[in-house]
Amino acid sequence: MSGAGGHPAATRGPVRVVGTGLLGTSVGLALRAGGVDVVLADPSRTTVLLSRDVGAGRLPAPDEPEPALVVVAAPPDVTAEVVLAELAAHPRAVVTDVASVKGTVAQAVAAGGGDLARYVGSHPMAGSERSGPTAARPDLFAGRPWVVCAGGADRDAVLAVRTLAVDAGATPVMLEAAEHDAAVALVSHVPQVAASLVAARLRDAGPAALDLAGQGLRDVTRIAASEPGLWTSILAANSGAVVPVLRALRDDLDALVGALERAGGQVAEPAGALGTVAAAIAAGNAGVGRIPGKHGGSHATYDVVTVLVPDRPGELGRLLVDMGHAGVNLEELAIDHAPRQAVGLASLSVLPGLGARLEDELTARGWRVAG
Amino acid sequence: MSGAGGHPAATRGPVRVVGTGLLGTSVGLALRAGGVDVVLADPSRTTVLLSRDVGAGRLPAPDEPEPALVVVAAPPDVTAEVVLAELAAHPRAVVTDVASVKGTVAQAVAAGGGDLARYVGSHPMAGSERSGPTAARPDLFAGRPWVVCAGGADRDAVLAVRTLAVDAGATPVMLEAAEHDAAVALVSHVPQVAASLVAARLRDAGPAALDLAGQGLRDVTRIAASEPGLWTSILAANSGAVVPVLRALRDDLDALVGALERAGGQVAEPAGALGTVAAAIAAGNAGVGRIPGKHGGSHATYDVVTVLVPDRPGELGRLLVDMGHAGVNLEELAIDHAPRQAVGLASLSVLPGLGARLEDELTARGWRVAG
Repeated sequence: MSGAGGHPAATRGPVRVVGTGLLGTSVGLALRAGGVDVVLADPSRTTVLLSRDVGAGRLPAPDEPEPALVVVAAPPDVTAEVVLAELAAHPRAVVTDVASVKGTVAQAVAAGGGDLARYVGSHPMAGSERSGPTAARPDLFAGRPWVVCAGGADRDAVLAVRTLAVDAGATPVMLEAAEHDAAVALVSHVPQVAASLVAARLRDAGPAALDLAGQGLRDVTRIAASEPGLWTSILAANSGAVVPVLRALRDDLDALVGALERAGGQVAEPAGALGTVAAAIAAGNAGVGRIPGKHGGSHATYDVVTVLVPDRPGELGRLLVDMGHAGVNLEELAIDHAPRQAVGLASLSVLPGLGARLEDELTARGWRVAG
Repeated sequence: MSGAGGHPAATRGPVRVVGTGLLGTSVGLALRAGGVDVVLADPSRTTVLLSRDVGAGRLPAPDEPEPALVVVAAPPDVTAEVVLAELAAHPRAVVTDVASVKGTVAQAVAAGGGDLARYVGSHPMAGSERSGPTAARPDLFAGRPWVVCAGGADRDAVLAVRTLAVDAGATPVMLEAAEHDAAVALVSHVPQVAASLVAARLRDAGPAALDLAGQGLRDVTRIAASEPGLWTSILAANSGAVVPVLRALRDDLDALVGALERAGGQVAEPAGALGTVAAAIAAGNAGVGRIPGKHGGSHATYDVVTVLVPDRPGELGRLLVDMGHAGVNLEELAIDHAPRQAVGLASLSVLPGLGARLEDELTARGWRVAG
């Protein structure tokens, strides 16, 4: 048997998964693929049966042995109380949780008198706009960072949770809880708020406006489809880290709105107003340039080759096979299309210096490549 | 000779393109592909020579005949004055512009005494984070909406600009200037501001935070890489439509920040605070659900099949060829990966009801498909 990464799992079982939604069921699937014994629990009988049926583990036996590891995958607002209950019920088990917020959970576990030597908070940086056991997959964590917060835990407990992350195909990243919470506020929680606020403006938009929507709007608002209940818990639990970033964003927005009001549709610059607008856009340039690309570089360094692709089964595949024949690896792919059209534009990002050769090769194979 | 859409161009030449950056050069390339005589002009000698060299048209002859159509592709803040100059210099030509804002340009052309019977404002909904003639492509407008504002123009003048749009492979969409400006504020200008403001928060982020960046952050901030000078002109020229939307967004943001401060890291609901947060996320759900998909449907209606793809040349192509063999057409494709990993996750969106068959077919061909 092999784990999600193609290796036998090193995690010692039985592993008890408490909360069998998207994350819990995906943990179970990954561990089962590595041959680990997984026991499933959830307050909803329907949810736990679904999780079992997709292969994430088994139901507890009447004479169930003690688990070696408990993975709490409950909603963030009940995570701490479930962790405390599991620490008490299984006094030799290591207990971890996978909630998106770590500081408030750790504080509540400490305040509740939990055994901190056996508690290791963690957070796999993976998810989906979909939820529930049927959206789970054994490779949900493949190639993703999995934050592990050592806190006051024993060395063996930390190792058990790092091993869990590796068995799930993820890369363990050691961070303090406060560092984690500040980081996810910036890279996850505030972007979620911004996407939701922009998407909310579309509720009353006319059809003419929506028909002009392009890839930019789709990209900015994609995560606005996420679940309100889950995100309410996350934002409330991490409000200490999220609010200062949202306040700074609001200050920038106020400055921008003020400058646009002073500019008032004028093309000449009224008292520096346009400088404020330009500075806001330039600050965005600087920020987006810092997001690492797939290989740790900036995505701005790729060559981009754009190809017209007929909207028929297999055409995009044929394009990428031809790309493979050219011996050029694909770093990033974006598919771009307008509403109600039978043609797409594939933007192929390749390592710098390879773009010209790829253009020649694809043109020679009959593709319509950008000039 | 055939146009960008594979048909001979119907536009009557010579067409004079004034401003040979990304848009002007792309218009020239599309018209040249259809056999239309294109004359190029730009205040920068380097830019116009580059545009000629990529094949967008020729330089004016000493005894240059009068153009039938002038396309002004200048920055938004100088568009009106260039339109007025061209209307005066070429008294029988139809003059259009491609600026992203239409109301302020039309007002300035009217205020400057331009011949409104021959002026038709327009806006092709296409672009790129890249700029300049070397980023231009003959298919930049393929399958995109191209807004045409009739204003006070003659019927023949409007027809000439609609024909230009069709020759460029675009779909003409007739809108009044004010309707256009309100629409692009919602679907383009406000999303740009939001992306820039979120990205700006990353300027001072630590490397640990940036290493946790996932596809959500990348999507929300992609357009934050856009050009500050151009966007300053656009936002200033359309401030009348943009500011009310930004104010409404700021009111929502204020309400959200206030609610999160009241929640203050608590998991229990303090006086409705969490309801405000949930309502903001739910409003985003409602808004994003209104964005039309490729075939006019909501993107939420697709089946999504997720497949693990090794990061080697041709692998993604092989996957999509196998998908073609299964006879299932690809509606949307997202490639997802974490920094510094040699594996990607391809999310294949297909029409509802086809997901299960596709999973079976791909599994049978040896692909690792989500459970």
